[in-house]
Amino acid sequence: MVARAVVATPAPFYASVDLRNSGFKLAPVDTNLFPAGFNNLNIAFMPLCVQAIQAAVERVCPRARRVLIVAENHTRNLFYLESLEVIRLVFEQAGLEAKVGSLRDDITATTIIDLPSGKQCVLEPLSRNGDRVAIDDFSPCLVLLNNDLSAGRPTILEGLEQQLTPPLSAGWSDRKKSDHFRHYDAVAREFAEQIDIDPWLVSPMSVQCGEINFMDRSGNDCLVKNVDKMLADIQQKYDQYGIDKAPFVIVKADSGTYGMGIMTVKNADELATLNRKQRSKMASGKEGLVVENVLVQEGVYTFETIGDENAVAEPVIYMIDHFVVGGFYRVHTSRGVDENLNAPGMHFEPLAFAQSCITPDKQEQPDAEPNRFYAYGVIARLALLASARELAALS
Amino acid sequence: MVARAVVATPAPFYASVDLRNSGFKLAPVDTNLFPAGFNNLNIAFMPLCVQAIQAAVERVCPRARRVLIVAENHTRNLFYLESLEVIRLVFEQAGLEAKVGSLRDDITATTIIDLPSGKQCVLEPLSRNGDRVAIDDFSPCLVLLNNDLSAGRPTILEGLEQQLTPPLSAGWSDRKKSDHFRHYDAVAREFAEQIDIDPWLVSPMSVQCGEINFMDRSGNDCLVKNVDKMLADIQQKYDQYGIDKAPFVIVKADSGTYGMGIMTVKNADELATLNRKQRSKMASGKEGLVVENVLVQEGVYTFETIGDENAVAEPVIYMIDHFVVGGFYRVHTSRGVDENLNAPGMHFEPLAFAQSCITPDKQEQPDAEPNRFYAYGVIARLALLASARELAALS
Repeated sequence: MVARAVVATPAPFYASVDLRNSGFKLAPVDTNLFPAGFNNLNIAFMPLCVQAIQAAVERVCPRARRVLIVAENHTRNLFYLESLEVIRLVFEQAGLEAKVGSLRDDITATTIIDLPSGKQCVLEPLSRNGDRVAIDDFSPCLVLLNNDLSAGRPTILEGLEQQLTPPLSAGWSDRKKSDHFRHYDAVAREFAEQIDIDPWLVSPMSVQCGEINFMDRSGNDCLVKNVDKMLADIQQKYDQYGIDKAPFVIVKADSGTYGMGIMTVKNADELATLNRKQRSKMASGKEGLVVENVLVQEGVYTFETIGDENAVAEPVIYMIDHFVVGGFYRVHTSRGVDENLNAPGMHFEPLAFAQSCITPDKQEQPDAEPNRFYAYGVIARLALLASARELAALS
Repeated sequence: MVARAVVATPAPFYASVDLRNSGFKLAPVDTNLFPAGFNNLNIAFMPLCVQAIQAAVERVCPRARRVLIVAENHTRNLFYLESLEVIRLVFEQAGLEAKVGSLRDDITATTIIDLPSGKQCVLEPLSRNGDRVAIDDFSPCLVLLNNDLSAGRPTILEGLEQQLTPPLSAGWSDRKKSDHFRHYDAVAREFAEQIDIDPWLVSPMSVQCGEINFMDRSGNDCLVKNVDKMLADIQQKYDQYGIDKAPFVIVKADSGTYGMGIMTVKNADELATLNRKQRSKMASGKEGLVVENVLVQEGVYTFETIGDENAVAEPVIYMIDHFVVGGFYRVHTSRGVDENLNAPGMHFEPLAFAQSCITPDKQEQPDAEPNRFYAYGVIARLALLASARELAALS
């Protein structure tokens, strides 16, 4: 119990981490603190989620018997709603009563949505009562945020006396990817030192470019300079390890998600010749968030392929508290090994991991499934630790 | 974190609970704080064990990176050694280096035993160095006891500066079943009040008889009187619920395990007519422990049967820390519904639960597998809570 007190950077309540595995390098490229996609996990590992939720609730609000889940605003994305219902069911199986509240103005009464799985998602309007939010008289001490706040911090959630987790500061209105990857890089260095490897093997180079306006092209010089330098730095690493591939960087919004405002660049000249459509796409993130700061990040090839079609795959790892509860492959049949696979409108197939990420097998080869999944879990936990430090610094 | 401080009765490190399900009553009949049988759990739920061990270690010794497991003394019971190796592997998968130490005088060097599963069990001699035990220079801060101390508290384990868990006081040299069931009865009453049921439905009547010597028959009068009274009390409950069955009681040693010194009694007269062999069997428990105190406990029919042969089955639930990690049916093809099934020399088949005990399904019937297993887990957790209180009172 004494030891608990030293946890200055507790794990976020939950997270998902997108990884890229190029064989020579395994690195996180995005850490989501309001994960969706729980419906893509292997149902065989739902007990792991239930157990982890019990531990997580015990840590943040040990007497909680009920939880209010605050949803994302997109009510027509049935995949999202499936995920939401899985989270709600996990809470129920963990012994808590769980309801889903919506911030949307047009959800003014209980709204029941039939889901493809046969389940139903029940969305209810959220109301504010003094320093508490509620669904009617359902106003538990624990409020779980599953909305990444791309549209800003909602007034209704400010200054709650209830335990809001993750905190508002974990949303994209406060959080910056560049902060995350700065913390991640430090974590990766500490880790690499312990096992005596080059930290580059698990950490993507990242640099922030501020004050970019894609529409009027201001700040473009800075961007070109940073992209140029990073491409050269990557080339140097590729030379060091004898990797015969073309370096590339990813340029993305420093805040936000959903694969909007993301660009693959192999040559800085490409930035000078963006057409209007490309610039406009970069200029706005989810829900109209204007891109001002961008993150220039080393592109990591993904050389995992799935099936006869050799579809490009990238692993996504899910964590609840500090436990790795599962993962899946995001499989893309129409994208390249150097492209972002989390793209709206593009077709991707989730392929649930057949095995857990926490049962490595010393009798098997290092890249056998249990061991590869374990390695994913290790890197994802490093990203989780980075997020824990990131949130501690924000609060 | 504040809430952690209120845990005055932390869960034991691990436990297994034998249950009996008569349809009208579901009750624990034995709570083992040094569980074996981990090899009988469904391998699909090993990740649950790994995750729970991580949480358990974090609680008792958060900085532990290694663990020394102190084994039972029976080295020829390969089933036990299989269980031991499963526990060791779970620790390894949880990220700890784990070795098994033996208290046996005849284990003077590293002893490798081939197991039926193809695994190996490595037993090493335990040595004492000041206030620490070690295997050579392997002397971790965490020492896990998997020996129920039926032979008494070993001097080599007294007064360690290392974290010994469960503590020596959890062994049968200190612990009494009558204490456990006294605590259990209180827990069951609190639980029953919350869900408004008769506590008898989840708790077996229990009473201790002291100073019994089966060989010279001293104390027999007290035993006969208690058995008589309990049979009448059970009959009264059976009348209340319209149960057309003959009441029976179990007479067993108040300390000890392994189904030795256990007797089914339907009529107190049977106690007067025990032959020499029966009395001698009751008089000594495991490793020559002389039976002095006995527990008279309400017998709970088991009406669960498995397979075409309708073999009698009783559920056994496994817990690590306060998490239910799995269970199996102890299936007996040659014993009756009113007999103890944990009997040495008798044939039993473990049948691993196909589903977890923590994923109840509201869409299914109350006695559908996920819900039945969940109910087992609930009752097992009540027994675990009783043990937590029992240990707090002993320490």
